[in-house]
Amino acid sequence: MIVSTMQEGALTTQLLVDRMTSIHAHKRVFVGVDRDISPRTFAETAARTRRVAGWMLASGLREGDCVATLLWNCHEHLELFLAVPSVGCVLHTINTRLSAETINAMLAETRPRALFVDVGMAQLFEALTLPAETTMVVGVSPSGTRPAMASDSPVLDYTTVMAAATPLTRWPMLKEQQACAICYTSGTSGKSKGVVYSHRSAILHAIAMLGVDAIAMSEKDVCFPIVPMFHALGWGFPYAACMSGAELVFSYRNSDPASIAHLVHTCDVTLATAVPTVWSGVLDAVRRGDVNETDLKSLRRLPIGGAAVSEDLVSGFEAMGISVQHCWGMTEVSPLGLVSSRRAGVSDEEWRALRMTPGMPLPGCELRVISEQGHEVPRDGRSPGELQASGPWVTGAYFDPASSDGHSGAGSFVTDGRGQAWLKTGDVATWDTRGYVRIVDRAKDLIKSGGEWISSIELESALCTHPAVSEAAVVPIPDSHWQERPLAYVSLVRDWPGQEPDLKGFLAARLPKWQVPDRVIVLLELPKGATGKIDKRRLRQLAASAPVA
Amino acid sequence: MIVSTMQEGALTTQLLVDRMTSIHAHKRVFVGVDRDISPRTFAETAARTRRVAGWMLASGLREGDCVATLLWNCHEHLELFLAVPSVGCVLHTINTRLSAETINAMLAETRPRALFVDVGMAQLFEALTLPAETTMVVGVSPSGTRPAMASDSPVLDYTTVMAAATPLTRWPMLKEQQACAICYTSGTSGKSKGVVYSHRSAILHAIAMLGVDAIAMSEKDVCFPIVPMFHALGWGFPYAACMSGAELVFSYRNSDPASIAHLVHTCDVTLATAVPTVWSGVLDAVRRGDVNETDLKSLRRLPIGGAAVSEDLVSGFEAMGISVQHCWGMTEVSPLGLVSSRRAGVSDEEWRALRMTPGMPLPGCELRVISEQGHEVPRDGRSPGELQASGPWVTGAYFDPASSDGHSGAGSFVTDGRGQAWLKTGDVATWDTRGYVRIVDRAKDLIKSGGEWISSIELESALCTHPAVSEAAVVPIPDSHWQERPLAYVSLVRDWPGQEPDLKGFLAARLPKWQVPDRVIVLLELPKGATGKIDKRRLRQLAASAPVA
Repeated sequence: MIVSTMQEGALTTQLLVDRMTSIHAHKRVFVGVDRDISPRTFAETAARTRRVAGWMLASGLREGDCVATLLWNCHEHLELFLAVPSVGCVLHTINTRLSAETINAMLAETRPRALFVDVGMAQLFEALTLPAETTMVVGVSPSGTRPAMASDSPVLDYTTVMAAATPLTRWPMLKEQQACAICYTSGTSGKSKGVVYSHRSAILHAIAMLGVDAIAMSEKDVCFPIVPMFHALGWGFPYAACMSGAELVFSYRNSDPASIAHLVHTCDVTLATAVPTVWSGVLDAVRRGDVNETDLKSLRRLPIGGAAVSEDLVSGFEAMGISVQHCWGMTEVSPLGLVSSRRAGVSDEEWRALRMTPGMPLPGCELRVISEQGHEVPRDGRSPGELQASGPWVTGAYFDPASSDGHSGAGSFVTDGRGQAWLKTGDVATWDTRGYVRIVDRAKDLIKSGGEWISSIELESALCTHPAVSEAAVVPIPDSHWQERPLAYVSLVRDWPGQEPDLKGFLAARLPKWQVPDRVIVLLELPKGATGKIDKRRLRQLAASAPVA
Repeated sequence: MIVSTMQEGALTTQLLVDRMTSIHAHKRVFVGVDRDISPRTFAETAARTRRVAGWMLASGLREGDCVATLLWNCHEHLELFLAVPSVGCVLHTINTRLSAETINAMLAETRPRALFVDVGMAQLFEALTLPAETTMVVGVSPSGTRPAMASDSPVLDYTTVMAAATPLTRWPMLKEQQACAICYTSGTSGKSKGVVYSHRSAILHAIAMLGVDAIAMSEKDVCFPIVPMFHALGWGFPYAACMSGAELVFSYRNSDPASIAHLVHTCDVTLATAVPTVWSGVLDAVRRGDVNETDLKSLRRLPIGGAAVSEDLVSGFEAMGISVQHCWGMTEVSPLGLVSSRRAGVSDEEWRALRMTPGMPLPGCELRVISEQGHEVPRDGRSPGELQASGPWVTGAYFDPASSDGHSGAGSFVTDGRGQAWLKTGDVATWDTRGYVRIVDRAKDLIKSGGEWISSIELESALCTHPAVSEAAVVPIPDSHWQERPLAYVSLVRDWPGQEPDLKGFLAARLPKWQVPDRVIVLLELPKGATGKIDKRRLRQLAASAPVA
């Protein structure tokens, strides 16, 4: 019997800290708080990581313990991203935009032993009910201010803790399958569910991101994850930067055009990532003259996820020499599954249609499109089915402390004939022979009208190709005759010069008549959820409360 | 306790076949035999892989069985690269350039149940003593000719076998830690030793190769591994191409300039890899006018490994717009550990010195430089120590069927304080703060002269910067006074116009006097081993048989 002679070393976050020390020591992390920019080298960050790791172990934290953060994007959050999993604890990154009630429900599940909280969030913090296990609270003040926080537990200060700590010199041996971090899904449709990443999934995801047909993050990049670090670990960008040696830029809690432009300009950012809304804001600011286009001249690539991107956004940045790269992902997929890529042999004309699709699956991630009958749909670019995902950074369950194995999720997963697990993403997609996946709808957003399915995403994408449209969302409204009919909400690009455009006429020229919404309502802004995505639930409520004629 | 919810799917070669079917189906594999080029799509290759897999299981092969190949680079070899491990068997790729005696010793260790052999190698095959287990022999004839082969076992024909086989529709479930393939080290210094790759190591290596700072292999590339597939699985390029969707080109047994140029031109090759000798040949042929420079115009990148590259080679290709990328690897490292990369902030002047170094460690691979006292040497770019490697595609032992766990290798490995295994590579290196590793010598090639160490690689590199020098090798010769002295052998670039250059004078202007070899001997060609590397053992014998004055 021939057995593998390969080393059995685990893929863990410790590798990131070691690489930051050994070959990327001179690289820098910049954090901008208002107009102040504070730089640190990777070597300093790694040293501080070992310091907070030393404090954690000295304070009695043990492998498997949960450590929560209620922080924006800052040095301290990066240090905890690295230190908490590297000592074998589990990082729970709390979305700071959620209500105290929602956060309390999550804390009751993860039961952290320590909580690191931005002192600027004293009001939210004081509204929290901490579990009995949360005996250590550490205040973090990246902005320098240190208001007192009232708490049943004594609130320590991060700076004081660090000053007194003894750096950890030797990492404990970990298994790569053990838990690294827990993130909750956005929960715009029901209760938030916890997804627990492993060290293996986080590191494999980071290595795959570096691929030239994936995010192509390089040692030569300066990477600016504007997306909050509490969203699926900052969409994986911080870990990928530590691995690749790309310099990192964070903007604390700010995602306004002026803050973004200031950091891009000062730090020579090449690669930045955020939801489409943030980039629409930047594009508007450039067009208004509030942001100087030359401030963005170092920017090359904008991987964008979280929602469909508009034609205006893609062509607007393209005109500045900046490439918008459409990505598909979800918290359950760590989050990246598909990244836009112009494949060899794709003509200019084909590309104009395909560049709005999220592209090719990352190496190691498998996707398939399954019909209601449970078979793969034809690869014809037309037949819709449910997008399903499988692979080492795809979740196979949701966290459920009430169940015996800590897992639940019946209904969200299927197992195929050979025992391979697949996540049912809830997205409806088509695919073609070259692997281009096009998301046509969320399963729950499909509109059933007169026995025919209408794709809300298709309508939204069509609306987004109109130069006046900034954002669009389509929801179903009940109809006595047709059962359901689509209703469209849009916001217009700022300073749209003309009168309100005839969007129904615009759609009628492009789509079958029965698919055209009976009304297109212009709002000043579309409502957003805590993750910056359009909140369709509130639009459905709005539609229900103000029925159309 | 929070436990990971991630899927537990294994990283196996099955993923490659699935990806070739699902998203890279239209991509092609080209095999050139003499002037005939036979193309097949990835979909066809994947279908044929399932067919030969079906034959293997139907023939009684079972998980853990060894299947050996004695083949050049061809369609059938790629099919076996994919099929053998994907059914759980272990692929033993035999170096076709070895003697029957050496191959017999290897077969006595791996004891394959099946052997796939190129019918053009009937003479070598008939000199082999097959183990009793080898009951199935399949003749492969990529060139179309089918001479009969005499054997104790009936020799089947690959075409007939495939025609009768039923394709395997469902892969067996495998563990990623199980053996995928066994390759033997080149053994220029003693007995060849087997390294057993796992599915995990092969797939991680392939994903890491795609990194933009690694090989950056893209779906847009046409990849031509001129290196034989029996060398460390073709240096990992075939698997990386299947993963990325790069088209593949193979040249069967040919690596002459005309064959290479014909395939590069016809298939629009962008990325090709081989030992320096092959590329020196191509460069010479272009300079002689035997190869048309425009035939190479699609070429962009030449990752080169296996030996130091000469300044002439790098600048010669650079003048044609082709970038030579120096890599460091060994069979024990799957094989890639370091890939040349111009890091951010490296000046033109620094780069001229650094581009001859093998660059940065791949993400997931850890390297360190250790002094004789067992400590990391200073990162000053000057202090030498032994290069040691650790990571999921680095071997932790050698194959040894005589030992109880199938492993041996005491002396070649060390374990650090926290239990992490490190391979002692035998290479002597320096490193600097930016992670640039420079190989200064093979431990066994260091020359001890008058109590001082002289680096043979440093001398070779210095000789290689002379425009007349094509290849250089320095070996120690015994010296009554100094204990050892360096002796240099060189070959000159073809058609070097002037008289024999004063290489001793050239070195004397660049190096301390005591390091300059007493003689520099010009040979028509330096002797090569089975892997195409310069055979220093034969040069040492030559030096011993013709002592210098």
